[in-house]
Amino acid sequence: MKKLLYQLDTDLLPSVFDNVVAHDGGADQVIPYGGITPDNMGPLVEGVIFTRAPKDKKNTAIFVGGSNLVEGESLFSAIQNKFFGKFRVSLMLDSNGANTTAAACVAWLTQGRPIEGKQAIVLGGTGPVGQRVAVMLGRAGAEVTLTGRQLERTRQVCAQLNQRYGLTVAAAAAPDLESRGQSIQGKEIVVSTGASGVTMLEETQWAQATGLELIADANASPPVGIGGIDMTDRATLRHGVLCFGPLGFGALKLALHRECIGRLFDSNDLVLDAEAIFERARILLAASL
Amino acid sequence: MKKLLYQLDTDLLPSVFDNVVAHDGGADQVIPYGGITPDNMGPLVEGVIFTRAPKDKKNTAIFVGGSNLVEGESLFSAIQNKFFGKFRVSLMLDSNGANTTAAACVAWLTQGRPIEGKQAIVLGGTGPVGQRVAVMLGRAGAEVTLTGRQLERTRQVCAQLNQRYGLTVAAAAAPDLESRGQSIQGKEIVVSTGASGVTMLEETQWAQATGLELIADANASPPVGIGGIDMTDRATLRHGVLCFGPLGFGALKLALHRECIGRLFDSNDLVLDAEAIFERARILLAASL
Amino acid sequence: MKKLLYQLDTDLLPSVFDNVVAHDGGADQVIPYGGITPDNMGPLVEGVIFTRAPKDKKNTAIFVGGSNLVEGESLFSAIQNKFFGKFRVSLMLDSNGANTTAAACVAWLTQGRPIEGKQAIVLGGTGPVGQRVAVMLGRAGAEVTLTGRQLERTRQVCAQLNQRYGLTVAAAAAPDLESRGQSIQGKEIVVSTGASGVTMLEETQWAQATGLELIADANASPPVGIGGIDMTDRATLRHGVLCFGPLGFGALKLALHRECIGRLFDSNDLVLDAEAIFERARILLAASL
Repeated sequence: MKKLLYQLDTDLLPSVFDNVVAHDGGADQVIPYGGITPDNMGPLVEGVIFTRAPKDKKNTAIFVGGSNLVEGESLFSAIQNKFFGKFRVSLMLDSNGANTTAAACVAWLTQGRPIEGKQAIVLGGTGPVGQRVAVMLGRAGAEVTLTGRQLERTRQVCAQLNQRYGLTVAAAAAPDLESRGQSIQGKEIVVSTGASGVTMLEETQWAQATGLELIADANASPPVGIGGIDMTDRATLRHGVLCFGPLGFGALKLALHRECIGRLFDSNDLVLDAEAIFERARILLAASL
Repeated sequence: MKKLLYQLDTDLLPSVFDNVVAHDGGADQVIPYGGITPDNMGPLVEGVIFTRAPKDKKNTAIFVGGSNLVEGESLFSAIQNKFFGKFRVSLMLDSNGANTTAAACVAWLTQGRPIEGKQAIVLGGTGPVGQRVAVMLGRAGAEVTLTGRQLERTRQVCAQLNQRYGLTVAAAAAPDLESRGQSIQGKEIVVSTGASGVTMLEETQWAQATGLELIADANASPPVGIGGIDMTDRATLRHGVLCFGPLGFGALKLALHRECIGRLFDSNDLVLDAEAIFERARILLAASL
Repeated sequence: MKKLLYQLDTDLLPSVFDNVVAHDGGADQVIPYGGITPDNMGPLVEGVIFTRAPKDKKNTAIFVGGSNLVEGESLFSAIQNKFFGKFRVSLMLDSNGANTTAAACVAWLTQGRPIEGKQAIVLGGTGPVGQRVAVMLGRAGAEVTLTGRQLERTRQVCAQLNQRYGLTVAAAAAPDLESRGQSIQGKEIVVSTGASGVTMLEETQWAQATGLELIADANASPPVGIGGIDMTDRATLRHGVLCFGPLGFGALKLALHRECIGRLFDSNDLVLDAEAIFERARILLAASL
């Protein structure tokens, strides 16, 4: 029996990235649907859960993707609400690659290094990846601050995260280089998830920061978001700080994404969102070292 | 050479149900197209019939689906008009699952029980499944009445069926419980295909009806459409009547749907609509008992 | 690792013809996208080039199709502009089948017959196939004239071809039978690529033309575009002229199309447009004789 993955994408054109990785992750057939919303997903999900016998349902799964994480979360939730009893399949959320990217980044940062009680900051963290990084750092025990350009928007994002995940992420506005330089004072962990093309920190700003232990830049489009970091840094020591660049944890991101797809077909009731994906990232990384 | 099934769906989002079943039925690749109409199907059908050598054309087939049977019938007909000479492939119509659902239901009702000359009634029969049930009962020799909420609409439906299939299905309005209770008097076969959520008959209405032999409820979404019937009834004797619930013939529906898909690839000139699908249902059911 | 072909089509409904041939040509999975333009292809192409390791990129490829060659060329060019360094995959352009149809036609015309310096004319040549035929004849050394109904439009087309391919194709208006009959005087090669349903030349017009050696009709929908030619002609001698009908070179067209798809997966940097496809047509034809 073929392993069928229904790729439900909130964008009109379903992600090719997710499509390729789904094929490589072990789906026999990946069937992409674009423009999917909570309003039109009903018949699609019924088609998924009503067509195969209970023992065979593990061979069908759903992947939720698209460029917008908020839309993805709504769709993910609506799909789960259609499930009942044994009429369910495994599903995964990875809009904008946010879960797998954040999980790979934080798995590397925390590999062999407990971060409980550490001071962490996510610069430019209001987007999908930044939010997921904050959640994963917070769940791993760090004291997390998340910065954005606008204080109000940043507070809203943090309030939602804190409510949803039971965290205490603090919000801060840091719209320019100077304020971002200020914001990292006293932090032990800095992760940048700002928009590509924006310099989030210059090298001189972090090179002499006292107490800084770990720094990661998630911006995969040149130029780098944090000066002095190389795209391929992977626990590279610079100015006494362990540095991670986007390509440094990119291999784990892709391996993780593929592995999660494969796991979907192990049972018919797996739900892969931030926490479960982060857990898989840690296991996968530990096994690879 | 791969068995390619082009799934032409009249809805904008092609049916996932049909897609899964097509994979399970033996197609190597199922390529879904949504929003297909008689106006835009031309180049698609040409692509199907002009690409493979005559001896290989049996490895390409077309499935017509969607939620609207009238649109499906138009598309089905338009596609056949594009075929000429050896430039044709096998194709199947199953909009809304109407053909396979009705065929499974009527095959169970008539299995080992000739129904020639019997009085049959299809309650709430103006929809896709009801129409197909009426056709199949009529072709099997029953005297069929079809009811709907509005007399005029019901008469139109019956007139079209009678013209198209050479039948004499009678129309009757039965908009409420009382009128439906009246309508089954003297009937030997009752099939309910009303909208989900509507109680078509209460148990007391049919429990004491004289001469009633067979009763079937096609409504697969709880609550049941006919009181006293269990979803899983399959020739279950209740009040002296053989009862069939939607899950009771649902297994045959799915097996039939899959089997029909597989048959499409046996030759390049099979046309699977109501009659041929009903014939396959009878054979499949007999072979399984 | 599966060979994935992303079929990016400029039409809203991706070509079924191209889809079937892609499956037959060796792609393990063909993923069709409709309505693709230079403006929306960016994320799709990034998904293609960023998902697999360098050594595996040859297993992903892009096919550009659709009914409009001008739109196809723009898309083809935009996709190539997204490639950089090793982040590229093989890709093929065949909007409206123009490249494969023209290549098969001209390969047959020139097989074993050098045409350097010969006078050639493409009747009704402003469309996709005609333009590609003119380019291929010109690159093979013929002196090419291209005719259309309107002189201005025809001149524009030729100017673009000449600039793009370094040719000297001459433009001529030939809107009716008489002018087309005039236009072939002194020509040694005549190819008709006019709209289907239009008689481009009557048999009497070319039967006595002096010096005429080769004549081909690319119109695959009856009636034939050139009187006296049979659809299946393949180097058939009529009135002392070697004749080719659309079905005569159609087998090579399909074999070529399939072969080109297969070649896409040999490396990650193949670019299949007019010249490369024509070269493959010549090799394929020579090997088959």
